[in-house]
Amino acid sequence: MINGSAVEVNGRRYAAPKQPTVVFCIDGCEPDYIAQAVAGGHMPHLKRVLSDGTALLADCVVPSFTNPNNLSIVTGAPPSVHGICGNTLFDVEANEEVLMNDPKWLRAPSILAAVADIGQSVAVVTAKDKLRRLLGHKLRGICFSAEKADQATQQENGIDEVVSLVGMPVPDVYSAELSEFVFAAGVKLIQRQRPDLLYLSTTDYVQHKHAPGDERANRFYAMFDRYLGELDTLGAVFVVTADHGMNAKTRLDASPNVIYLQDLIDDWLGRERARVILPITDPYVVHHGALGSFATIYLNASDVAGVIEKLRALMGVEVVLPRAEAAHRFELPADRIGDVVVVSERSFVLGTSRSRHDLSQLELPLRSHGGISEQRVPLIVNRRIEGLDANRRWRNFDAFDLALNYAQ
Amino acid sequence: MINGSAVEVNGRRYAAPKQPTVVFCIDGCEPDYIAQAVAGGHMPHLKRVLSDGTALLADCVVPSFTNPNNLSIVTGAPPSVHGICGNTLFDVEANEEVLMNDPKWLRAPSILAAVADIGQSVAVVTAKDKLRRLLGHKLRGICFSAEKADQATQQENGIDEVVSLVGMPVPDVYSAELSEFVFAAGVKLIQRQRPDLLYLSTTDYVQHKHAPGDERANRFYAMFDRYLGELDTLGAVFVVTADHGMNAKTRLDASPNVIYLQDLIDDWLGRERARVILPITDPYVVHHGALGSFATIYLNASDVAGVIEKLRALMGVEVVLPRAEAAHRFELPADRIGDVVVVSERSFVLGTSRSRHDLSQLELPLRSHGGISEQRVPLIVNRRIEGLDANRRWRNFDAFDLALNYAQ
Repeated sequence: MINGSAVEVNGRRYAAPKQPTVVFCIDGCEPDYIAQAVAGGHMPHLKRVLSDGTALLADCVVPSFTNPNNLSIVTGAPPSVHGICGNTLFDVEANEEVLMNDPKWLRAPSILAAVADIGQSVAVVTAKDKLRRLLGHKLRGICFSAEKADQATQQENGIDEVVSLVGMPVPDVYSAELSEFVFAAGVKLIQRQRPDLLYLSTTDYVQHKHAPGDERANRFYAMFDRYLGELDTLGAVFVVTADHGMNAKTRLDASPNVIYLQDLIDDWLGRERARVILPITDPYVVHHGALGSFATIYLNASDVAGVIEKLRALMGVEVVLPRAEAAHRFELPADRIGDVVVVSERSFVLGTSRSRHDLSQLELPLRSHGGISEQRVPLIVNRRIEGLDANRRWRNFDAFDLALNYAQ
Repeated sequence: MINGSAVEVNGRRYAAPKQPTVVFCIDGCEPDYIAQAVAGGHMPHLKRVLSDGTALLADCVVPSFTNPNNLSIVTGAPPSVHGICGNTLFDVEANEEVLMNDPKWLRAPSILAAVADIGQSVAVVTAKDKLRRLLGHKLRGICFSAEKADQATQQENGIDEVVSLVGMPVPDVYSAELSEFVFAAGVKLIQRQRPDLLYLSTTDYVQHKHAPGDERANRFYAMFDRYLGELDTLGAVFVVTADHGMNAKTRLDASPNVIYLQDLIDDWLGRERARVILPITDPYVVHHGALGSFATIYLNASDVAGVIEKLRALMGVEVVLPRAEAAHRFELPADRIGDVVVVSERSFVLGTSRSRHDLSQLELPLRSHGGISEQRVPLIVNRRIEGLDANRRWRNFDAFDLALNYAQ
């Protein structure tokens, strides 16, 4: 806290909101989803915002996954600061892979908690519950997920009776409606409780299934646009950004275009010499079969150089870096990534062993993320901000800076 | 010529075809077009080929434009060998931009002409006439375009009465039917004249307009698939590759995402100090408004380093190289590119001056090509070839090598 009208969080200063302010993290929002929906006439409100407000392209954090990027947005800092470098982490001490949903992994406070601490009202709504505890850590305010909206209590979530407030049944965790519930809840909160600061984070169910311009993708963005229109009418400032983009990841025959790293390395070194970790892994694998474009590998120091050389020769591998270089380039906590970091190209994903991926539930050609190829995301503000440098490397975690320091 | 059963062209040896052999250059065939069409059930014949034959991903030539890549495919060599480094060239001596459609710019013989010279029958069908003279240079055989099919004569094209042979009217130059005419002509030629070697090159009208998975794109590939099925039935060997991929090139508001290089450089150096050349330019600019992801710049030697530094700082610029480095990296003829080569990122295109681009005819969000982001293309053979190294960097100009040396 600086004083009652501003906070300092992770080295950046944020003014307290003067009007209801909403930051959206639209999961998997490859910029082309917006362009195609606008071109098709499905986003009249956002079209006006793009013309009259501020429209930037920004880089998200690599790995371009949900947890690291949501935490970057709400802390205004990269994973080297906040510590959340994947959905999954290899806990070296426990010798097991663990979900990074527990706040014990967090190393930095959030802007949300800091703004609440100076007496502003703050609310957070997420689609899936996996993010709720991280985003709501030390937050004195409202924080609930659409997934478990019917279980929200004053004590745990700072709110109850969410389902009747929103006026929608709790949606299936695999549905477009899970995100709509987030939007609807946001608008109702602004109407009823008028929080000062609101963070809304959706799920990429639609984006994993449908490409930009697809009718079902356009329908999702048309729905989003109606809520944006309502927020505009309510006088809210909003910023729209994303945790990551999304690309098709298939072979010519439409099967998943997987490089099975564990199989390859076992073949090179012998079994049990290396452990491939896929930090995209979360409890919701139906979308992507735990296949993304980023992997880390734990292995013996003497094997690092040789494995890096072999990996770099593979078709579809974009970048292979040893731990320190990867931590530097991608601003990751060096103690939480493997000895080697691998990023695959736009149309490729990285797997462990062929036998460990159940792809039977993938109904459609694989679309996924995690790599540098999914780094570009929208950064849109419904207020015109003069004098911004479009050639600056904007980050999705500049969202609160724009919202609170420039758009009020 | 080596002897009656093989030729050597540009340092590579090719066996004469033992059965009718067709090489397809599907203009603008981003690999995902095939994946999405296969997934949607629109390409049953190709689906079988992908399973039973050979399916590779290959890199095309950068600039990922039509002329350089068609010439690379038919010469089996990069532009540093064949000399065609764009659709347009800046003729330094004449101080003007000229179309590179004249065979005088060609520096290497084609595989097609060489195979014809050993007594094999060879035929070439292109969609647009712009390529016909280059592809047919010194070719003793059939060579005509769909665009001017009604004007084909025995003397000029080695064939007449094309329209009645094909049984389709001459299509509009801006249509999907222009490519269908090429396929239909190919099948009719195989049925009636059974040429030994056939090269079929289409237009990217559909790909400039519609994304992979779009209904109209799928319809195009379904049409293509029917002709592939006919060729399979006729016992032909075929190889399918492409001149380049295709990506959306728009801002969030769906307007073309252009970096106007001439305006920027005029601003930095003053007017008339530099000349930006867009080698995508051809007489058919409705598709793309002459906007692609590759440009070269002619300027004074003393300005090169400064301009390179400034260009590298621009959002959306992927690679900026001085002439010699660009010629080396992209295998281009150093004497025919500018002092600086610029490649933009996947969602960006490069323009000259804002006032010189007429974008009024662009009906749909811009899709274009030219960059490294459009370098991956399919390389498919309807015969199983054992022992190929999938991690080798395959090129689209390996198509005739696969067709003639491996698939017979």
